[in-house]
Parts: sequence; C-alpha cells; structure tokens
Amino acid sequence: MPSMDLRPLLQDNGSKIILYVWDGLGDIPSGPKGLTPLQAARTPNADRLAREGVSGRLEPVYPGVTPGSGPGHLGLFGYDPIEYPIGRGALEAAGVGFDFRHGDVAARLNFCTLDAQGRITDRRAGRIPSDESAEVVRRLAEAVKEVDGVQVLWAPVKEHRALMVLRGEGLGDGVHDTDPQQTGVPPLAAKASGETAADARTAAVAQKVLQAAMAAIRREKKANGILARGFAKRPHWPSVQERFGVRAAVIAGTPMYRGVAKLVGMEEQPATNEIAKDVASLAAAWNRYDFFFIHYKHTDKAGEDGDFDAKVHYIEEADAGLPALEELGPDVLMVTADHSTPAAMKGHSWHPVPVVLRAKTVCRDAVERFDEISCIQGWIGLRPSTHLMPLALAHAGRLAKFGA
Amino acid sequence: MPSMDLRPLLQDNGSKIILYVWDGLGDIPSGPKGLTPLQAARTPNADRLAREGVSGRLEPVYPGVTPGSGPGHLGLFGYDPIEYPIGRGALEAAGVGFDFRHGDVAARLNFCTLDAQGRITDRRAGRIPSDESAEVVRRLAEAVKEVDGVQVLWAPVKEHRALMVLRGEGLGDGVHDTDPQQTGVPPLAAKASGETAADARTAAVAQKVLQAAMAAIRREKKANGILARGFAKRPHWPSVQERFGVRAAVIAGTPMYRGVAKLVGMEEQPATNEIAKDVASLAAAWNRYDFFFIHYKHTDKAGEDGDFDAKVHYIEEADAGLPALEELGPDVLMVTADHSTPAAMKGHSWHPVPVVLRAKTVCRDAVERFDEISCIQGWIGLRPSTHLMPLALAHAGRLAKFGA
Repeated sequence: MPSMDLRPLLQDNGSKIILYVWDGLGDIPSGPKGLTPLQAARTPNADRLAREGVSGRLEPVYPGVTPGSGPGHLGLFGYDPIEYPIGRGALEAAGVGFDFRHGDVAARLNFCTLDAQGRITDRRAGRIPSDESAEVVRRLAEAVKEVDGVQVLWAPVKEHRALMVLRGEGLGDGVHDTDPQQTGVPPLAAKASGETAADARTAAVAQKVLQAAMAAIRREKKANGILARGFAKRPHWPSVQERFGVRAAVIAGTPMYRGVAKLVGMEEQPATNEIAKDVASLAAAWNRYDFFFIHYKHTDKAGEDGDFDAKVHYIEEADAGLPALEELGPDVLMVTADHSTPAAMKGHSWHPVPVVLRAKTVCRDAVERFDEISCIQGWIGLRPSTHLMPLALAHAGRLAKFGA
Repeated sequence: MPSMDLRPLLQDNGSKIILYVWDGLGDIPSGPKGLTPLQAARTPNADRLAREGVSGRLEPVYPGVTPGSGPGHLGLFGYDPIEYPIGRGALEAAGVGFDFRHGDVAARLNFCTLDAQGRITDRRAGRIPSDESAEVVRRLAEAVKEVDGVQVLWAPVKEHRALMVLRGEGLGDGVHDTDPQQTGVPPLAAKASGETAADARTAAVAQKVLQAAMAAIRREKKANGILARGFAKRPHWPSVQERFGVRAAVIAGTPMYRGVAKLVGMEEQPATNEIAKDVASLAAAWNRYDFFFIHYKHTDKAGEDGDFDAKVHYIEEADAGLPALEELGPDVLMVTADHSTPAAMKGHSWHPVPVVLRAKTVCRDAVERFDEISCIQGWIGLRPSTHLMPLALAHAGRLAKFGA
C-alpha cells in the first residue's frame, strides 16, 4: 500500500512520543532451551509495556529483504525505504555525521593497492587499520582542497573506507563508479552516467580530483589507489515535521543513526551510547520536541559478533533504560528494532522485529511478554514498519478524522 | 496494495451475500473487568457465526487513520476511500438522502450572522436549532429557484447547516469556498478554483445565487448570512454491479448510509432503524438482489455518547437480528463495522474492527467468540477493509480462477 499523505489530518495537541530502538533486537531461537536472546533475557519493563500496551511485529523493507541500518531506520520513521532511496555516498556521509548539505555530491571511497603499472592488486588495500587510513585521509585533505572552483572535502570512515564530498554550484550525481570490481586492471575513469551538463562537469571534476589524490598518495605501500562508488546528492526529502507535524529529536551515540535521523529533519542531541546518560539527554530536551528517537546500539553489535550471552546482557541493559523514559510521561512509548540481527547468523536478517506500544487509547491484547513469539498474538499484527508512525500519531491524538 | 480489477473473473452463480454492519462496533477495553462492550455483551448468534465461520480484523482507511462514516462504508463496499474520494458537498447530499444526480453541483452551507456592515460576527449563526434552520431553508427555496438557467435546490441538514444544489448543463465543481474561516470580515465571493469555462460559469452563478439568497434572509436575527463550502459533483464511479457483478440493495434507516450506498449503485429498500423491520424489508427484496447491505445504527450512537452500557445493550439488539437473516439461507453472511467508536473516546477511532464471515467454503479457525481480541487469532487476519468484498465474492462462488 503506498504511503498516505497525512498532512491534511495533522493536529498539534502538544502530545509527546518516544521511539526507543534496540538495534538489531530481533533474533531466532538459538540459545539454551531453544530460546531467542529476547526470550532468554529478563525484561521486566518491556514485559510490563506488553501487558499494558499492544504488541506486534514490523517488517522493515519488504518480505524476505534484509535491511541495512539506513533503510531499517527510515521505515520506523515512516519513510518507505523503497520510496525513499539513499545513494551510497549520501548514506556514508550521514553515517559519519558529515555536515552534508543540499547540493553536495558524496562518494564512498575504498583505498586500494596498485602495482607499478597502475593495476589493482587488492581492492581493499589489505583492509588497513582505521588509524592508518585516517592518516592517509589527512594527507589527501592537505593535498586536494579545490579543483575547478569545486571544494573537495575528505573524511575517514573505517579501515580502508573513506568519504569524498564535492561542494560547489551546479553539481550532479549521475557519475559512474570508478571501481572495476576486479583486480588486474586499473581503476576506471570517472564518467557521467546521467545526461545533464551538471553530471558531465561533476564527472570531469571527480576525475581530476581522483588523479590528484592518487598522485598525492602514490608512495603509500598499501593505500596507493582510490576507488570511488555511489556518487550521490543529499536527497530532498520532506522532514518529519512537514510530513507528520512533529518537532523531532534524535539521541543516538553512533554517527550513522544520527545521520539518518538528520536526513529526515530530526535535531541532534548529545549522546554517548551509555543508556542512562542518553535518557538524561532526552529528558533535558523534553520541552523542546514532540517526537524523540532514542537509539540503543549494543544489542546489534552482540548479534553481529554471534554472542548470544552478550546479546541477552545488552537487552537487559536496554530494558533498564525504560523506567526513566516512562517517568517523563510520554503519551506514546514504543520499543522496537530497525531489523533483526540473529546471533546465530552473525549479521542483519529479514525477520520481522517485535514491537510494543503503550498509550491511553490502546485496545489491550493478551500479550504478556515482549518477545518475537509472544508478539505474534498482538493487536498491532504483522505490518510494514512504515505503519508504525501513523499508529503512533493516532495514539498521540495527532490525526484528525478522514472524511465525514 | 492497489485494488485488483476483478471484472474478468466474475461469474454469476445466483448466490446471495449479506453484509450486516454494526455501526461503530469496534471499541477498546473500558468496562468492568477491562472488557470492551462487545466482550461484555451477550452475542450468542455472532458467537455461533465465529465458531462456524472465520474471523479477523479490518482496517478501514489506513493505519492510524480515523474514518468518517462515508470512507468507513466505502471500504467495506470494496472502494478504497483514498482512491475514491468524495467532496464534502457530495457527501452532504448523500448524507441527507438528496436525489443527487450526475452533473449536479452540491455545496455545504453554514448559516452565519452578519453585522450591519455585512461582516461575519458568528460563523455558525449561534448554532440555531434544526427547526429554525429548516424554516430559513424553506424561505430560500421559495425565493431562489433559478439563476441564469440553472435550477437551484435547497435542503436543510442539521442546526446551522444546509445543502445547496445547482442543477443544469455544463456545470463544474472547481469553485472556492466562500467561508473566510474568520469573523470580522464579509463572506468571500464565489470564485473559480479550476480553469474550465464550466468552473467559471458555476462560480458566477453561485455568486448570484448566494447574493439573492442573502438578500432573502437579511432580516433574520441570527441566520442572515450564508457561507458555502466543498463544491462537488457526484463522482462518476463504477457501480458494485459493474465492478463486482452483483445487483445490490441497501437497507439503512439513516439517510447518510443510504446515500453512500447509492453512490456505488445500491438500490434503496424501505428502512426504519428498527432491526426486526429492516430485516423484514431485506427479506421482502430477497429474490431481486444478490448483495444486501443492512445497517444497524444504534451501536455507533451509544459509542459517541460515551455510554458503555447502552452500547452493550444495542450490540445485543443487533445480535438478535441475526437468526432471521440466517433463515434466508445466504451463501455468505458477514458481520462487521465501518469503524470503531470507543465509548471511552466518545467518537470514531482508527482501531481495526472485528469481522466474521460464514460460508460453506470457510477454513474454520479456532475463534469461538466475536470480539476485538478473539478476532486477532482468526483466519481472516488483519487486512484493509477493501479486502472483504473479494473474499465475500470468492466464498459466494462468484470469482473464477485467475490464470491457468
């Protein structure tokens, strides 16, 4: 079902909504007694929400489709990730918390290793450590600052990955990747994929930038070449304030999640990835916003590491953050996840995520525990994650009647 | 998911379908022991249907969106209310049971109070009682019957509200409201919002009509001005017969529901809002139609009044209407609602409504009671209400195989 335009129905009644995301929470049974980490964990607070509220399951992108962190969060924010695609470069810029402006063109970079003839011998430069890579990026930032009137900005990401941003008037993002996706050949030249003058100019500038950059690092042992991918502008999306009428704050200790939230107009608050401090940061912003997205990271990391016990531990830590959020008296309080990260799979997966929502107007169901299996019986049912935002707005009293 | 065109699959096997709507039935737990009115009510007949049939929940418009009565019913009739919007004027015309024809342009009127300088002092004319208002409408009907060859028709609605219908060749409904939405200024002139000659002509006619009408009531103390809103033509929708191959009858004691049913081509039968009589009216039409929409109003009224006990009482009354419908031997018998009207909220809400369907071909589920919570476990699941009509047609044997 395509997203409905809710703007004609919006009404501001001063109510407050909290969306508490336990990253990668969803899982499959792989623990002792065939439990999921969420079933094995003691979560007295989320269980109380399940008894007092309504539960269900959210499907992040499309049945069977495993979301990256960007799409996983966009769905929860009410942006269908298929309707709202993000270019790789834009996501990387959001991900490192880069001050990514409208008109900028970003590309993801991989450092690679070239032989004496300029042919690629390793597309990831031996996955050099992040600090070595950051040093190379510093050198680039010194060496290549401007080309043909276009400002060039560089930022490290992680290991062999980095970010390049072109800033200037009239740039386009219709530019092909320069990564040939194989070794034994040189990097490709940057060529326009679009047909506009902006694309052609940007391809030409990017080509000069990459040539100058590779010249500047040619004496590096490993990272002496650069492959650029996913040229992308910042998308011109309507903000959550425009689409849903809420002033929104993001409290997320990891740049990636802050970045995605900022793409939809949420305003950044201090955050540390220590849940007690992050809840305090949310509380400090309580009077200034209507909608609060607070992010808990460690559950996902434990899943990625395949560490069942650590995931149980971090779920319990996330649960312990709930009472302080409840004390603020939100009209709608939700706990859910951006995607599943089953410990047995050591990575993201397509499994729908459990969700619980508490508000005065819920039609309380029979669910008594917050976990993947109990939630199947809940009032919310199984839905695309994009349905969560309209349900939250309704329970917050923020949607007027449709038609007479 | 967009609606599928079912026409190539339709087959007429002479089967009969009854859709029995308990208006505003859905609710949330607010009674003694935390029950919903439907849980608290004794509904032996609907419970029997639940045991012998299949249950589930229908979402009327969109997740979180509270439907008005028009959209709520359209969904049940298989018309997505977002794909099939109704202009305010058209809905008002349907709502008072006006003989609203293709080509007519209807507008909602508010009587208002003007001061000596013609400025609005009260946009609702002190919400004058319906009988006073009806008297003013009678005066208008005498005074303004035709302008520039266009016939002008007037009908009272309720309190300060009335209906104006322009009938003639070549009218358009691209006309702005004349309500300035504030006091201290005069009503706006009627101006075209569209760019067609029909819109321009209609705006000019409407302006002359409103001027003449206000001159005719200028000595009224309260209702001496008129504001017109929501100019709209009768929508050109395919009928249920065209889309679903059924000759359909509506048995509804309240003009609003009859009006909406007639917009999709259902034919009006006598109705009183007394369920035994209305069932008898349906029985009298049994041989002439394939599809019967019978409407029970009082449950909604009790919800709007916030009267839990009355809602329980009326649910039991609605339930008592079932055996006589069953005796007719319908191939498909359905009970559901157009929307929820929780007594605790004293108004419509977005909560999905319970539905039960009995037919020879059901895959009987484990649901034993007809209520909001039991239905969560049912075979029908949670669906947009537009899915009900194709399911009914299928269980009636009216849909042929798709593809080979």
